[in-house]
Amino acid sequence: MARKNLNVGLVGYGFMGRTHSNAYLQAPRFFDVPYQPVLKAVCARNADRAKGFAENWGYQSVETDWRALIERKDIDLIDIASPNDTHAEIAIAAAKAGKMVLCEKPLGRTAAEGKAMVDAVEAANVPNMVWYNYRRVPALALLKQLLDEGRFGRIFHYRSQFLQDWTISSDLPQGGEGLWRLDASVAGSGVTGDLLAHNIDMALWLNGPISEVTAMTETFVKERKHSLTGHVEPVHIDDASSFLCRFKNGSTATFEATRYARGHKALFTLEINGEFASAKWDLHDLHRLEFFDHRDEGRLRGWKSIHITDGDHPYMKNWWVPGLQIGYEHTFIHQVADFLQAADEHRQAAPTFQDGLAADYVTDAVLNSAKTKQWQNVPRV
Amino acid sequence: MARKNLNVGLVGYGFMGRTHSNAYLQAPRFFDVPYQPVLKAVCARNADRAKGFAENWGYQSVETDWRALIERKDIDLIDIASPNDTHAEIAIAAAKAGKMVLCEKPLGRTAAEGKAMVDAVEAANVPNMVWYNYRRVPALALLKQLLDEGRFGRIFHYRSQFLQDWTISSDLPQGGEGLWRLDASVAGSGVTGDLLAHNIDMALWLNGPISEVTAMTETFVKERKHSLTGHVEPVHIDDASSFLCRFKNGSTATFEATRYARGHKALFTLEINGEFASAKWDLHDLHRLEFFDHRDEGRLRGWKSIHITDGDHPYMKNWWVPGLQIGYEHTFIHQVADFLQAADEHRQAAPTFQDGLAADYVTDAVLNSAKTKQWQNVPRV
Amino acid sequence: MARKNLNVGLVGYGFMGRTHSNAYLQAPRFFDVPYQPVLKAVCARNADRAKGFAENWGYQSVETDWRALIERKDIDLIDIASPNDTHAEIAIAAAKAGKMVLCEKPLGRTAAEGKAMVDAVEAANVPNMVWYNYRRVPALALLKQLLDEGRFGRIFHYRSQFLQDWTISSDLPQGGEGLWRLDASVAGSGVTGDLLAHNIDMALWLNGPISEVTAMTETFVKERKHSLTGHVEPVHIDDASSFLCRFKNGSTATFEATRYARGHKALFTLEINGEFASAKWDLHDLHRLEFFDHRDEGRLRGWKSIHITDGDHPYMKNWWVPGLQIGYEHTFIHQVADFLQAADEHRQAAPTFQDGLAADYVTDAVLNSAKTKQWQNVPRV
Amino acid sequence: MARKNLNVGLVGYGFMGRTHSNAYLQAPRFFDVPYQPVLKAVCARNADRAKGFAENWGYQSVETDWRALIERKDIDLIDIASPNDTHAEIAIAAAKAGKMVLCEKPLGRTAAEGKAMVDAVEAANVPNMVWYNYRRVPALALLKQLLDEGRFGRIFHYRSQFLQDWTISSDLPQGGEGLWRLDASVAGSGVTGDLLAHNIDMALWLNGPISEVTAMTETFVKERKHSLTGHVEPVHIDDASSFLCRFKNGSTATFEATRYARGHKALFTLEINGEFASAKWDLHDLHRLEFFDHRDEGRLRGWKSIHITDGDHPYMKNWWVPGLQIGYEHTFIHQVADFLQAADEHRQAAPTFQDGLAADYVTDAVLNSAKTKQWQNVPRV
Repeated sequence: MARKNLNVGLVGYGFMGRTHSNAYLQAPRFFDVPYQPVLKAVCARNADRAKGFAENWGYQSVETDWRALIERKDIDLIDIASPNDTHAEIAIAAAKAGKMVLCEKPLGRTAAEGKAMVDAVEAANVPNMVWYNYRRVPALALLKQLLDEGRFGRIFHYRSQFLQDWTISSDLPQGGEGLWRLDASVAGSGVTGDLLAHNIDMALWLNGPISEVTAMTETFVKERKHSLTGHVEPVHIDDASSFLCRFKNGSTATFEATRYARGHKALFTLEINGEFASAKWDLHDLHRLEFFDHRDEGRLRGWKSIHITDGDHPYMKNWWVPGLQIGYEHTFIHQVADFLQAADEHRQAAPTFQDGLAADYVTDAVLNSAKTKQWQNVPRV
Repeated sequence: MARKNLNVGLVGYGFMGRTHSNAYLQAPRFFDVPYQPVLKAVCARNADRAKGFAENWGYQSVETDWRALIERKDIDLIDIASPNDTHAEIAIAAAKAGKMVLCEKPLGRTAAEGKAMVDAVEAANVPNMVWYNYRRVPALALLKQLLDEGRFGRIFHYRSQFLQDWTISSDLPQGGEGLWRLDASVAGSGVTGDLLAHNIDMALWLNGPISEVTAMTETFVKERKHSLTGHVEPVHIDDASSFLCRFKNGSTATFEATRYARGHKALFTLEINGEFASAKWDLHDLHRLEFFDHRDEGRLRGWKSIHITDGDHPYMKNWWVPGLQIGYEHTFIHQVADFLQAADEHRQAAPTFQDGLAADYVTDAVLNSAKTKQWQNVPRV
Repeated sequence: MARKNLNVGLVGYGFMGRTHSNAYLQAPRFFDVPYQPVLKAVCARNADRAKGFAENWGYQSVETDWRALIERKDIDLIDIASPNDTHAEIAIAAAKAGKMVLCEKPLGRTAAEGKAMVDAVEAANVPNMVWYNYRRVPALALLKQLLDEGRFGRIFHYRSQFLQDWTISSDLPQGGEGLWRLDASVAGSGVTGDLLAHNIDMALWLNGPISEVTAMTETFVKERKHSLTGHVEPVHIDDASSFLCRFKNGSTATFEATRYARGHKALFTLEINGEFASAKWDLHDLHRLEFFDHRDEGRLRGWKSIHITDGDHPYMKNWWVPGLQIGYEHTFIHQVADFLQAADEHRQAAPTFQDGLAADYVTDAVLNSAKTKQWQNVPRV
Repeated sequence: MARKNLNVGLVGYGFMGRTHSNAYLQAPRFFDVPYQPVLKAVCARNADRAKGFAENWGYQSVETDWRALIERKDIDLIDIASPNDTHAEIAIAAAKAGKMVLCEKPLGRTAAEGKAMVDAVEAANVPNMVWYNYRRVPALALLKQLLDEGRFGRIFHYRSQFLQDWTISSDLPQGGEGLWRLDASVAGSGVTGDLLAHNIDMALWLNGPISEVTAMTETFVKERKHSLTGHVEPVHIDDASSFLCRFKNGSTATFEATRYARGHKALFTLEINGEFASAKWDLHDLHRLEFFDHRDEGRLRGWKSIHITDGDHPYMKNWWVPGLQIGYEHTFIHQVADFLQAADEHRQAAPTFQDGLAADYVTDAVLNSAKTKQWQNVPRV
């Protein structure tokens, strides 16, 4: 339990700033990790907000310029939880400064940005990770185990959705505090980079590379008031995005993300169909994995709802007792725990920036296909 | 396919008259049965209604006195689908006349009536059956198979409910057409004989004899207008009835039935917990059996929802193709098919009058326990 | 109840021959219809099988040549339940002979066939209907009511699947008795015409015309033994088919059908997302409609599982009592009941051949898009 | 945010020691509470384990004698998370010392113990609370709101279960580290005090006082090796316990708890049926409330699954965004937040020791009824 300190400098104090901060504090209490993260500094342009955030989470200091943060010698790790348009610049500078770099997803607004980020961390040879947190949902970590064990046989189909409904009202402004996800210049794209990126990272992890896509996007509300300028301006993001694709392993797939699916708040779903078995999962009941095993006795075949709370489920022996579930924020805690372990062993913890770039290539292909109405091949990382 | 005719005389034309008539017509179309039921006559006091019913279902004739029906030489089988206060008298007379006798549940309003009915069919040595139709739900027939195969090991618990909500309004009258179930003199009791009787028959079939019970009944609406007299009169039926019990096999159980469970229409549920496995079922999704097998690999244990539509599920190879479900009335069709097969082989088809009497003993014990506030032993048939 | 007779001549005795025959017999027992269908004749090339079928279902006679059937003066209605390659020729001849014509779906193997069939029934001015039976699932009939009442507001999304798993084994032969759905020359296509056609008809009914599609098909097992020739031959059908599309009303959609989704038997699903409400349904629990109403009080919003068994649900007052469900075959019974009523009122009952052609146009566009890898516009009927 | 410190002394370091410690640390990060809990000392007989626990959770010191802990002037609050046989003695001493007292449930092993504890805290006039944590499940806090608003009308029924399966193996020893719940001298009773106590506290909170009970208990495994003595000894706890009861408000109820329900890990369930509405909940999906409102339009009535993740649900605006759920441990965090707020306002936060005593009276009555096989009246607090 004699842990080394690891000094964290966080950029951003929004929703993701909270989930990351909580993860740094909780990971060492529940997991036997080799490092104790120390919350050295939080950085944000708004000094008052940054100070309030620092006080609440116990950050020892505040910076208002990320360059100053990166220059600090007492910072080991830069964690980028600020809007998408800041990812590349900060990550590249942090890598050059020899820091460990953690970055919220998507890696870049475009694959070009993502590629530059990969080049930077590889040149600097620093630990790097993208916060595709859902890989650490215990149910999905179990699914990954089952796939790796070959229990599904040949894969025929994959399907995945991310359904929300929070932007249906045309009164919602675009841009500004908490709303930068509606501003294409900041976010890069709409649901494609925000939501589909999660579906894609998960699919690449579980089912391997995607070869080609045909896609369709739609913007339902064409104009919105911009909260910073006060003017009604054209909306440039995609409100909905869907695509069909083929995976390298021969399976076919459908993907869809939208913020216009009334009744769904954060319904990330996925299903995979193999020769011998199938599995389903969704984020609204994230502690359950639905599993069908064709090798079961015929009259007793069915979809099994596995309540992922037992000690032999991934990550769960570190939590409570069977039957008692964990929540959303625990995925970040698991990611920190795994990152600290890997760092200690001089391994990269997935998803690395390379993994993040692989997802960027797919989102680029999706957006291009939607624009050109042509199938697009997906480059390999 | 050269089938012998079996001439049916039906008493009653209500809800159960419809389900039985449908079953006689459908069974030979879907099952390879040795008899062709012929709808010879329907009997009811109201000649006009009986005539309309006969026309709709194809009965060849109408009787208004059940004694006349029983005297007819061209009737092989008397099917009693009339209110509970008629069961004993008609069944005993039919048995004496050497007819096959089928009787709606509960067998008698009391175990005393039931006992007389058993004595009559045994003295006459005629085929006899009670319409506890739910034994022929395919999901429950599968459960019975699994229990008989010893897959559950020692049984620890059983629980069963029958929840309805149709009598909550105090404006609903008691007695009369379609409402005799609220009239204790006709029905014998309230939910105990009407609903709990189903739970009990199923439990005796699946889990064996019950030894002793402690029970509680309640009448929430104390007075109702009687639809025949027009007067407001005290209500004598039980609106709700629940009991705890011990089975001979050492397991313990809870049972509950009510017509005051807002939101539930016909929610017959049951669950059984054994050393190695557990199962659950309910009537609102009657084509699903929920099954938990502790012998599954640890991290893959869970409740499996078996969609009972495959050819290797009981009765299902005679219906459609996998994935396509059947409904409520099919339980009666299965019961007719099994009865015809058994009759041809000179076997009794369960549930016999003896089985019906076993359930009557339990309902008597429940009502006595509720009245005396004492545990009651249950006599064995 | 003094009903006119309507003389039925059925072509085909397979799975659909059974569902139709059952519907003709059951409809008049549960619905107050103006006609009594009379099962005059069943027609099939195999005389023995036809005779067995006739005996079981009560057909008065047997024909082995459909031309002879159509020539019979005592036949009012020709019902085509034979494989897809027979639809057009029989339907056109039947229309020319002035018969009412009912045809299994899909209408034609191609839109060209379908168009010829529409022309024939319109020229002959005869009642005509396609057996897209799922329109008469009570839950979906309720959904249609809700949509027609404007409860959903502007529609943003539609999605629908039909997932099966029965052809995964490469040992399954193609062609021959019961397997013509695997033979492209008979079936026209694979899952596109067999399964997606159902999804498409339902979507057109609920959400209006489709404008354009981009599609992908796949054949996983490339060669199978042909059960008639005994040779291993290339497989020409599509094993899986999916498409993205835009509807005329501005909504976007994803569709998918496959016979390689392990664990799903007949999982026809659909979901529709509107401005004010959303709904979901699937065939495995066909008696439930999932409904979300955004106009509910905020903290009490949620997906409601409506158990479609009450008297105020479409078709359900003719069946049992609340809580007791019906099954798959009832959709055909409802369709017969509606057809008989419409025929009596000299109305066409939907889905007409025109409706069937509209679906054919979409399946043609899907297959073309998959072949050309280009978006395809869908012609309007 | 200038918070006063509140110095905590924790007794016990087991499962509950972890949940409480986490709650003290997390509450101030997510809720705007007036006190900052300071983890001053943890107390346990095993000094090494206590030290490890202190290190992990950040306790500043360790005690091995609870009396020493209580004597410390720098401790404001004594939190009792040690086995049941220690509750009364420690709580009474802590109250006498003028400390705030928080106690794990059940309050006493018997109502007599509980009564002495209530007397002590009332004489000392100190803030006191029992850790019936499930009152702070957001779904149940919402249910309580709905009941208080009168949305259910007259209540007819209540039912509640707590089903586990972890003691089925007869190889499991009784007594000792982590197994004191199987030792009647330490625990007081088996599932009655451990599990049913939760069901009872919740029921008293939601549905008011219980008047009388009839109960049944069972011990399936009669002898177990004692892990401390090494001898096979008779088992004195109840493995399963169920009861029927009447509430003061006229409703009737069934309760059941067991550790022999194969397939259930911590399945705490409850359902309440009122004149106008019903609700259901269970711990395995604790972020969902199932709600039925009879005042909905007839054909649209159904059970609504409310995903309790929106900002207008109790406690949830302090967590993430809609759709993202919290877990089990959050109930303790909420309880700490509420306690700190109440302490600042010189109010008691429920459930107080009085509430804990009310539950003890019911568990005593249940155990007495099971022993005497007689109905038992329940005393009022």
